Amino acid sequence: MCIGGESVSDDYSVGIPDDHFIRGHIPMTKQEIRVLVLSQAKIKSGHTVIDIGAGTGSLSVEAALQSGTGKVYAVEREPEGFELIKRNAAKFGVATIQPILGDAPAALAGLPQADTIFVGGSGGHLQEILAAARQLIKPGGRIIVTAVTIETLHNTLADMEAQSAFQTEAFCAQITRINKLASCHMLQALNPIYIITAIAPAAE
Amino acid sequence: MCIGGESVSDDYSVGIPDDHFIRGHIPMTKQEIRVLVLSQAKIKSGHTVIDIGAGTGSLSVEAALQSGTGKVYAVEREPEGFELIKRNAAKFGVATIQPILGDAPAALAGLPQADTIFVGGSGGHLQEILAAARQLIKPGGRIIVTAVTIETLHNTLADMEAQSAFQTEAFCAQITRINKLASCHMLQALNPIYIITAIAPAAE
Amino acid sequence: MCIGGESVSDDYSVGIPDDHFIRGHIPMTKQEIRVLVLSQAKIKSGHTVIDIGAGTGSLSVEAALQSGTGKVYAVEREPEGFELIKRNAAKFGVATIQPILGDAPAALAGLPQADTIFVGGSGGHLQEILAAARQLIKPGGRIIVTAVTIETLHNTLADMEAQSAFQTEAFCAQITRINKLASCHMLQALNPIYIITAIAPAAE
Amino acid sequence: MCIGGESVSDDYSVGIPDDHFIRGHIPMTKQEIRVLVLSQAKIKSGHTVIDIGAGTGSLSVEAALQSGTGKVYAVEREPEGFELIKRNAAKFGVATIQPILGDAPAALAGLPQADTIFVGGSGGHLQEILAAARQLIKPGGRIIVTAVTIETLHNTLADMEAQSAFQTEAFCAQITRINKLASCHMLQALNPIYIITAIAPAAE
Repeated sequence: MCIGGESVSDDYSVGIPDDHFIRGHIPMTKQEIRVLVLSQAKIKSGHTVIDIGAGTGSLSVEAALQSGTGKVYAVEREPEGFELIKRNAAKFGVATIQPILGDAPAALAGLPQADTIFVGGSGGHLQEILAAARQLIKPGGRIIVTAVTIETLHNTLADMEAQSAFQTEAFCAQITRINKLASCHMLQALNPIYIITAIAPAAE
Repeated sequence: MCIGGESVSDDYSVGIPDDHFIRGHIPMTKQEIRVLVLSQAKIKSGHTVIDIGAGTGSLSVEAALQSGTGKVYAVEREPEGFELIKRNAAKFGVATIQPILGDAPAALAGLPQADTIFVGGSGGHLQEILAAARQLIKPGGRIIVTAVTIETLHNTLADMEAQSAFQTEAFCAQITRINKLASCHMLQALNPIYIITAIAPAAE
Repeated sequence: MCIGGESVSDDYSVGIPDDHFIRGHIPMTKQEIRVLVLSQAKIKSGHTVIDIGAGTGSLSVEAALQSGTGKVYAVEREPEGFELIKRNAAKFGVATIQPILGDAPAALAGLPQADTIFVGGSGGHLQEILAAARQLIKPGGRIIVTAVTIETLHNTLADMEAQSAFQTEAFCAQITRINKLASCHMLQALNPIYIITAIAPAAE
Repeated sequence: MCIGGESVSDDYSVGIPDDHFIRGHIPMTKQEIRVLVLSQAKIKSGHTVIDIGAGTGSLSVEAALQSGTGKVYAVEREPEGFELIKRNAAKFGVATIQPILGDAPAALAGLPQADTIFVGGSGGHLQEILAAARQLIKPGGRIIVTAVTIETLHNTLADMEAQSAFQTEAFCAQITRINKLASCHMLQALNPIYIITAIAPAAE
């Protein structure tokens, strides 16, 4: 992978294993889901990314590795998450992540227009966050919502499709890990995640 | 995405939509699965890739976009697939794909050592193909098998883990597409796919 | 299974294979889903059942086999479905099914109080159908909705839980069939179905 | 449901909620899976059932409720499970369960011919257990294996299909529970389970 003109080590290409991140008590988007979310994001070097509900910062780190000279704003309302984002950014050597402690959408004030906006958590303010994201997204940019509740899934689809200029698509990913136990391979389900992508209209 | 120093168009970054490929009557690995498989492959510019059971060539095309100046050998035993690979390589402007018509492992004769080997079809010769893949893989390289049958899943795990030098891991991906129908969003399941990755021992 | 004091043949106990039913061009609830839906319904001999959006009548037939001397009202708005219900009732020898051609909730007029009400299709009138079902359900009875769209899932949960007297629960069932093909077993996904059960308050 | 001529309470019809059982540290087959397994078993009043790897006895209890005057032999090698089976049988008032502490197939010695044999655990002796089950099953009876590992799934299919007189079928069930959390409904995956059914040849 090509990042700001430099190569990074093998381990840091897209799809970093979960246990490479420093984790606390905060839920982390799993590796396979991060990969699918990033494939929707189409991040390129120089891109600006906003990650709302950044949690441990795992997605922010992978986005930063892809955006190279760009900037990643990682918004998180839990102080523990805020600290984890800083620690994970340091661990992976990405200086372009700016952690922001606060609730969205208020915490989005002053952020620049972005090429990609991730919404991984909404703290009960989904509608306001989506409205703010539509204001912040560049023409042709992508808003990507990961939903683990029926309400976030339904309301995101309803809200985004009410904006006819945006092109919306969605799918569900259900990953089952296979764990070696003695000489057997056991099936262990991860929770299903719905991934909704809304593409902003191109500039005229 | 940075390929051999040049940028490619938006549409051609990882995760190309299925309907961008020319399709025949041959099953095609779906977009979400290609994304997950590629994230396991860690392909870098200059890498050599062998795609066994390449089908329509959709995975070969995405691998070629990632391997840049490298080479992708796309082995397919169905003449229809062989033609589709050529047409899709032309459509996406990747000149580094070399389609090979024939049955693996015989058709692998003369191929160079590879950084990544995909096994998407085995035509009943799984064990011989895996043995050949282990001969062809570079130190630290990755063999990635996609399994849609219980036998391929089980036998790949058993065969690869018998090679204690290889590090093997696996998971199942079950994707459900969400299709808009009038004002409703319908759930449409894709078939589950097991993805098995075996990493060759590093050079001493 | 004990039905009205008489035994029925092996093939007619709960979980009748799909291909035992006469099928047209109408979607049929699959065997495994019927089994799960029936396990939520707790139908006993003598019970009254209403099946809204009965389709081919497969669920009505299984409900009739369980309700024995009870009655099953199978409401379907497609004439093809209406005919299939009659033919399947005849094939399985259940005389207690009364097919009703028409749109719910209008077609529910005059039906008696029921122990179980299935909602398998709503034709865009979900809210009115759920309201009618709450009027028709006996104390302690069960309304069971099968949802194949995000809207039916979300709106059923929201609508039923707004009735605090009803106890609501839900799960998703994703069945993958295993088909023998030559010496291999292929994985074939059925579409996921959400099953929502609302239990009416007991009589005081 | 009709059990030995008597009715049981609502709660005890097929599909007993998980939390109605006394549970220890032993994995329990979940409600939805029990329902699907029982639908494959076609148990009738008077039937003899053997439950190998009975765990907490949840499946044995449901089988006993269906087999009425029949007998259920619940084989379990863990003393904790053995005790739980006794306690759950007592809780649900089924006197027809005979718990057997020991390893299968040795612990099967002396058991009578059975209409249904469940194999929920094999302790590394799958092949011997399946061979013993084929000896113990009545003509037309059903052997039902629940598999949570790739090896049990694959080896059961291979072993049963080598017996051409037996008719084998299989599917995977992946259940996702929906949990209410504040005003949201969260998706929580249960591990997928493969259910393999082998039907013995009918008597000549």
